[in-house]
This record gives sequence, C-alpha cells and structure tokens, in this order.
Amino acid sequence: MRTQQPVKSDLAWATPDRIVVRGLDLPTEIIGRLNLGDMAFLEITGRIPTREESVMFNALAVTLVEHGIVPSTLAARITYLGAPEAMQAAVAAGLCGLGSVFVGSTEGAAAMLREAIPDRARPGDAEALAQDIVARFRAAKKIIPGVGHPLHKDGDPRTPRLFQLAAENGFDGPYVALMQAVARRAEAASGRRLPINATGAIGAIACEMDLPQPVVRGIGVMARAIGLVAHLLEESRQPLAREVWERVEDEASAHLRPAE
Amino acid sequence: MRTQQPVKSDLAWATPDRIVVRGLDLPTEIIGRLNLGDMAFLEITGRIPTREESVMFNALAVTLVEHGIVPSTLAARITYLGAPEAMQAAVAAGLCGLGSVFVGSTEGAAAMLREAIPDRARPGDAEALAQDIVARFRAAKKIIPGVGHPLHKDGDPRTPRLFQLAAENGFDGPYVALMQAVARRAEAASGRRLPINATGAIGAIACEMDLPQPVVRGIGVMARAIGLVAHLLEESRQPLAREVWERVEDEASAHLRPAE
Amino acid sequence: MRTQQPVKSDLAWATPDRIVVRGLDLPTEIIGRLNLGDMAFLEITGRIPTREESVMFNALAVTLVEHGIVPSTLAARITYLGAPEAMQAAVAAGLCGLGSVFVGSTEGAAAMLREAIPDRARPGDAEALAQDIVARFRAAKKIIPGVGHPLHKDGDPRTPRLFQLAAENGFDGPYVALMQAVARRAEAASGRRLPINATGAIGAIACEMDLPQPVVRGIGVMARAIGLVAHLLEESRQPLAREVWERVEDEASAHLRPAE
Amino acid sequence: MRTQQPVKSDLAWATPDRIVVRGLDLPTEIIGRLNLGDMAFLEITGRIPTREESVMFNALAVTLVEHGIVPSTLAARITYLGAPEAMQAAVAAGLCGLGSVFVGSTEGAAAMLREAIPDRARPGDAEALAQDIVARFRAAKKIIPGVGHPLHKDGDPRTPRLFQLAAENGFDGPYVALMQAVARRAEAASGRRLPINATGAIGAIACEMDLPQPVVRGIGVMARAIGLVAHLLEESRQPLAREVWERVEDEASAHLRPAE
Repeated sequence: MRTQQPVKSDLAWATPDRIVVRGLDLPTEIIGRLNLGDMAFLEITGRIPTREESVMFNALAVTLVEHGIVPSTLAARITYLGAPEAMQAAVAAGLCGLGSVFVGSTEGAAAMLREAIPDRARPGDAEALAQDIVARFRAAKKIIPGVGHPLHKDGDPRTPRLFQLAAENGFDGPYVALMQAVARRAEAASGRRLPINATGAIGAIACEMDLPQPVVRGIGVMARAIGLVAHLLEESRQPLAREVWERVEDEASAHLRPAE
Repeated sequence: MRTQQPVKSDLAWATPDRIVVRGLDLPTEIIGRLNLGDMAFLEITGRIPTREESVMFNALAVTLVEHGIVPSTLAARITYLGAPEAMQAAVAAGLCGLGSVFVGSTEGAAAMLREAIPDRARPGDAEALAQDIVARFRAAKKIIPGVGHPLHKDGDPRTPRLFQLAAENGFDGPYVALMQAVARRAEAASGRRLPINATGAIGAIACEMDLPQPVVRGIGVMARAIGLVAHLLEESRQPLAREVWERVEDEASAHLRPAE
Repeated sequence: MRTQQPVKSDLAWATPDRIVVRGLDLPTEIIGRLNLGDMAFLEITGRIPTREESVMFNALAVTLVEHGIVPSTLAARITYLGAPEAMQAAVAAGLCGLGSVFVGSTEGAAAMLREAIPDRARPGDAEALAQDIVARFRAAKKIIPGVGHPLHKDGDPRTPRLFQLAAENGFDGPYVALMQAVARRAEAASGRRLPINATGAIGAIACEMDLPQPVVRGIGVMARAIGLVAHLLEESRQPLAREVWERVEDEASAHLRPAE
Repeated sequence: MRTQQPVKSDLAWATPDRIVVRGLDLPTEIIGRLNLGDMAFLEITGRIPTREESVMFNALAVTLVEHGIVPSTLAARITYLGAPEAMQAAVAAGLCGLGSVFVGSTEGAAAMLREAIPDRARPGDAEALAQDIVARFRAAKKIIPGVGHPLHKDGDPRTPRLFQLAAENGFDGPYVALMQAVARRAEAASGRRLPINATGAIGAIACEMDLPQPVVRGIGVMARAIGLVAHLLEESRQPLAREVWERVEDEASAHLRPAE
C-alpha cells in the first residue's frame, strides 16, 4: 500500500473574499503597485525587487521580447493559420522551440559561469577560469554559450547596454567579469570575432542577481510569450503564414513532381 | 502558376549593429526605459503607453499572473515531471488550456461589450443594452461572460481594485458602465449573486483602453506564462506532480482491478 | 465543504503482473494481434473492429498521415530547429494548428451531416436535406465543410477511393449519400466546381461507422502525429527550417531596414 | 548577401489530380492496402514493411498506446477542461511531457545498445559489453535505461511478449541479447530485481529493425497521440479533470489559508 505524500504549493491562496500571492494581498498590495516585470520577480524570488533589481530584471526580460521573424514567431504564425480560434495554442507552439539552440543558450551561459564560480564570495581569477573554460569547450568541440552571433558579428548591440545597466545598478560582479574574460579568450583561441551576445550578457547578469538556475531559460520563455501575442495580432491583420507555406510547399516538392 | 504575395512584418528589424523594435532603438530607447508591461503595450499598440495606460495595462496583466493551482499550472507541472529538460514545453502545455472556459472568458466579455457599443462615442443607454444582453444570453441558455465565480461568490476581490484604478486613470467609461449594468440585470433575472469577476473587469477595461480584440485573450496568455515559470520553479524544488498522478491513477482504475 | 466526486477511468488497469486495456489482456490479446489502426479503434469504441471496420478505419486514418509540406509539418520542423532535444514538443507544436481551418473541417462535415440526419434509421430525403443545408450555409455566408480544395480543383483523388472502400465494406449509407448531394447542390448554387474533398469523405464515413463526434477531429490528430514524426526525421537529415526562417526574416523586414 | 540554399522534402508531392507519398500513389497503392502501423513504417523508412516487419512494428507501436492514467493522459485531460474546442491542443499538451523520464527512455535504451554495438555484423561479446555498460552507468550514478519498473517489479508483462514476437519474426539478434545481458548484470550488481521493461524491449527491437535513432522516441509519441484521443473522448463523457484540479487546489494551499 502506497503512503500518500503531501501536496503543497506556497505560491498563492484564495478564500471567497481574498487572494494572496506570495504572502501579499493581490488587490491592495500587488495590483496597481507592481509592474509586470516586478510581478515576475516576486513570483520567482518570493519578494518585491529593490529599485535596482526592478530596473535590471525588467531590462533582462524586455530584451528578449522581440527580434522580428525568428523560428518561434514563425512557427506560431503558421500554427495560427490553421487554428485562429485557439491563439493560446499558437503561442504554445511558438514556445515549444525555445530549447537548447536559441533561448536556451542563456541557460547554458549561466550554468557555465556558476560551475566556474559556485560561491560568488570566492570568485577566483577570471582569466585563469576563462582559459580553463575555453580550453575545455574547444577540446570537447562544443560551442561556448553566450558568445558570437550570426548577424551581430562585430558585437550584439544589446550587450553593452545590458552591462551598462548592470554597472549602474550594482550587478557588474565576478560573473560579468568572467563572461567577458571568456569572450576574450575565445576570440584569441579561435582567431575569430566572438563578442558576448545578449544571451551571454543575460546569463551573466542572472548569476549576479542570484536568480535560480531553472528560471534563466524561463525569463526568455515569459518574454517571448509577449512577443508571440504581438506577432499573432499582426498575423490576424497582415498575414504572412499562408504565403510562406505555399512557397515552401511549391519549392520543396518541385523535384518530385512530373514536368507539366 | 501562383503569383507570389509579399511577406512583411512591421514589428522589428535588425542589421549587424542595430535592433529596432516598433520604430524604437532597442538598446537605447527600450531596454532600461520600459518595464515589461510597457513593452507588451508597445508591442501590441505600436506606441509607448501614457502614464495612465502604463498603470492600467500593467495592472490588467499582473492580475492574471497567479491564482495558485489552476488547470494550467497543474497541467504544466505534470508535463514537467516527464520532460524536465524542456521547461519551455511544460509552459506551452499549460498555455494550451487557456481556451474558452477560463482565461478565454475575458475575450468573451470584451466581445459582448464591443458588440453592444461598437462606437464608444455613442454608448447608448447602458440599462437598455444590458437588459437586451441578459435576455439574449438567457434565451440562448448561454453563460454570460464576466460575471459569477465559483469561489468568490459574493464578489471577486480583484474587481473593485481594477475599477478603482480604471477610475483613477480615466478608463471608467461606457464599457465599464455596461459591464456593471449587465451584472445587475443578470442578478435580477437569475435571482443569484453574479458579481463581476476579474475577467469581466479586464474585458471591460480592455475595451476602454481600445486594445485590439484578438489581444484580450493574449493578455491572459502572456500573464500566465509568467505564473507558469514560477510554478515550474516550485515544482523543481517542491514537487507535487508525481503524487497527484499516482493518487489519480490508483483511484481511477480501482474499480477495474481485481480485489487483492 | 466541498463533497468529493469519484475519479474514474475505464480505459486500462495494471497490477504488478498484468496490464489490461479495454478489458483485453495487453500482452496476449492485443500486442501482436491488432495493428495500430485496430488498436485506435479499440481505444475509441471499446471493441475490436470487424474485418470491414478494420479496413475502413485504417483507410481513414492512413489518408490523413501525409500531404507533404503543410502548415503543421512546417511549424513542427521550424520548432525542431530550436529544440532538437525535445522532438515530442515539435510534434506537439505541429498538432496545435489542427484546428477549424484544416483537419478540423472533417469534424465540421460530420457535424453538418449528423445534424441533418440525427437518426440513421430515418435518413429522410437526401436531396431535400442537401438543398436546405446549402441554402443555410450560403445565407450565413459560411463555407460548406467537406467540399472544394485549393489544389485538387477537379476532384480530390482520395475521395473516390474512400467511397469505393466504403461501398466494399458496407459504409455507403445515408451520410455518404447526403454528402454527395450537398456537393452537387453546392456546385449548382455556386456555379463552381466543388467536389467532395478528403475531409468531407472522411466526415461522412465516420458518421456511417458511428464514430463518436469528438473523435472525428481526433482521427486527423493521431494520423498527423505519425506524419510529423516522419517530417522531423527528414528534418534531422535534410533540414529546411533554417533556410525558410532566414528567407522569411530577410524579406519580411526588408522594407524597414535602411538601404545599405 | 546570403546565398539561398535549396528547400527540399522527399516525403510527398501533389498535383491537381495526384497525391504521391514516398513514391507510392496514395489512393491506389496506400489507402485500403496499408494499415496504420505499416503506413508509419513507410513514412519512416521509405518502404513498405515485410510481413515480419509489419507484425513487429505494429506490435511496438501498439504496446505504447495506452497505460491508463499516466502524466501525459492526465495533463491532456486537464488541458481539455479549459479548451474543449481545441482538442488538438490538449493532445499536444499531453505529448509535451514525453521527454527524458518516461517515453524518452526508449530512446536511451536504443542509444546505449547502438553505442555498444555500432555494427550489427560484429556484435562482440554480450556479457563483456554488458559488464562494461553497467559499470559505467553505476560509476556515473546514472539510471540504466530500459530496466526496472515502479509497478511491474518482478517483470513487465509486455517484455516477454515483445521478445516472443521478435523471435518469431527474426528480430532476436545481438541487441536483444545485449539488453538481456545488461539486465542480468544490473541485477547482479545492484542486488535488486531489475527486469527489462517495455521501453528496454522496444529500444532493443528498434535496433534490430534498424529503425533510425531519432524515430525511437517518435514511436512512443505517435502511439501516445492515439491513446490521448481516447482519453479526451472519455473525458468528454466521464470527466475527472475538474475533480482532480479542485482536490489539488484545496489541499495544496490549505497550509496557507487562515483557519475558518
């Protein structure tokens, strides 16, 4: 006979006349007082952010909302074409691809940095750590997370702005320093430009803010959900999915179809 | 031969050294300047919100982030149990259920109000419109969207706060008045308490703010994506999904299993 | 205090040494005895199909497995690009779009036919029913489900084969007759070629087989899941998603980017 | 300037009067001739299965269709509660959790066996390979895929049946032998009963059948999609999701709510 375990969640409770989220009365202490990024911070950490944390966390999330037509927004728009009555499912389809290749690299950068500096009180020597990281990734023939960008080859324009905000708000500590050292070493070792991209900057700052590791990918997921809603709104007014599909269908099977 | 149509999106563009979203330079004009709710407003409407719009829109979104264990958070946690390496897919699973029954009722309320008042400059008589709406829904034996709540039977505590913020920020116009008249008439007609719930309040205020109709459900989708990330973080630390599954499995097939 | 309701599922049960599905011992009575379509029929109806039902049901499902690059397969492939480690999520993304526009039209055709002939023992006059259906859809300016196809303008090649199998296996009853009458009347009323497409044929035959209404869309969903796995396998060997994305991204924002 | 790459898919093509899948005419060579499992085999491998392959492949897929209330079926049913109009999205939600923990272990077993025997013509010594595998997994403190089951502790009843069918159809080669040796060694090393479970048997037989590695998880995904449709049909008639949700909600936050 199986022994039952308790089922417990600490995030919220409600009675007929109250709703309390993370210990705060939702109507009087949260609604109208916290912006959406602060609410996300409260949900994740259990406390209201300081002014500096508010600026920084909102900046991290805002950075990942929109980057035009990317795989997630394209998949969502094509899904919406078939099921416009279920826009939530089109957003879901878009999120399904935020895995190891794109948004997930934020998580990879944070994991790499935290593994090198498990205790921020003892950051060690950034250059030595970076040298070791780069050597290990190169030996394993793995891509170093957080550096390089197929389009922004000479520097991701989001990175300096994020690091500026980190400096202004007290989040330019050892993880940011290590991320920068890693990029320098990676460039030196490869002989190619490998500037820190937005996911590298966000991963490093997430470590500085001590955000829980499973949440790092989550910032990208929540941010992109916002962007996906905007893309579906645009798709409902100015559709592109059907044209994309028809072009791909035409071309993809042209080599199989008999000549007309 | 099919004629190709153009493929066009106006939301963002990028070159090697720039990223521009909705006409604004992402690094210098958006990151560190807009909070996450303002960013969502920019994405949806194409412009930065006024101070009043910022307060109100953030409040709408914040309201829908967290309501404890609800179907979407439970589905996401159970999904995470099987694929912890793909948390984006667990968020997606949670969003898939935000259809006509729960978050979708926001959309229903907004649609009902907009149909009754297509032109806000000519709002008509709220009482007469409400009487007509209630009569039509009752005749069709359909549930009136935006009123009543299984738990908050005597009043959803989020509603007065949202209407207070609407009044403070200039969004207490004809749609809010009509929603209130609908609730009164529905109570009178049914003889039951049917106070305006959060989705009714949000639907009405979304009309006041002139938010595009397809976006109304979208506010709930983006808000809940944030809540889902928090639930998955809690699930990773304090799991409940396996226990829920095992209990349900035990009980659901007990009537079929041979007595031991 | 809420009264607990029972939680019950009749589909399967397991003990340490047995697994029983729909009343049959899985290892000895199902595995190796039923093909995958028969298993689906057993799951849905609770009994093993007759020989005729087996041929017909397998044919319905097989018809919907593969139609090349369609929105669902394209969305899945684009999703896989970002999260190859979670192929189940890419299949899920592909399924999310099987809504009212594409596969869902099977369901619409079946619903239309069942509404006209609620009791197959009293089928009524097909021509009169068809005339009424066509008139109502045209008055409401709605598309008649199950007729017409953007590519197969002069006839969907799947339809005659499905109707042939229906005739051979005893499923060419009043619903098939009504579907054919609807197509004829629709052509006459519109002056355009509107042959029955595969979803119309499948919807009609599903009615003949007395398959439960919620399952009609489900046949398409299960069939397409198979096709999606094949597309993801091909995508892993001969990718097209990245090229599609990059082309769309280039073109979609070209009008916004400054001239080089 | 980016050079365009070709976009190509070999799975199917269509013209106004033809649909060809994997080189076969869909209406005349596939529909009514192949059962659903054979169609899946054709899609994956590009050829019609032999009689032995047909029996074996259908058996593998049939095995994974239904196991009662499991995480995927529970998540789908809870999702359906909120969006009954989008059953495809509820199936999608259920699939999202078929990751590394449950169905994904099929893939893990196959990968483990293929790594040990890359060339089936030179299978090596099963006992030595098994000893090495078990030692490596134990040293890494990793769970060996394909052995042990929380319920079927003394033996998964599906396994002997699958191996019997493998023997009857010529698929009891070196991968099956190695899987059996791994289970024996794992039991000896751990001192616990660790019989081969269904995912281990399926993983081994998939190697015998030379099914492509990315497809191994896919068999479970396509099979479960069928089971999920059946669960949603049952949910529409005999719901359990609301009761499960309400119980969990009540209990999960009971420790937070003020005493009444």
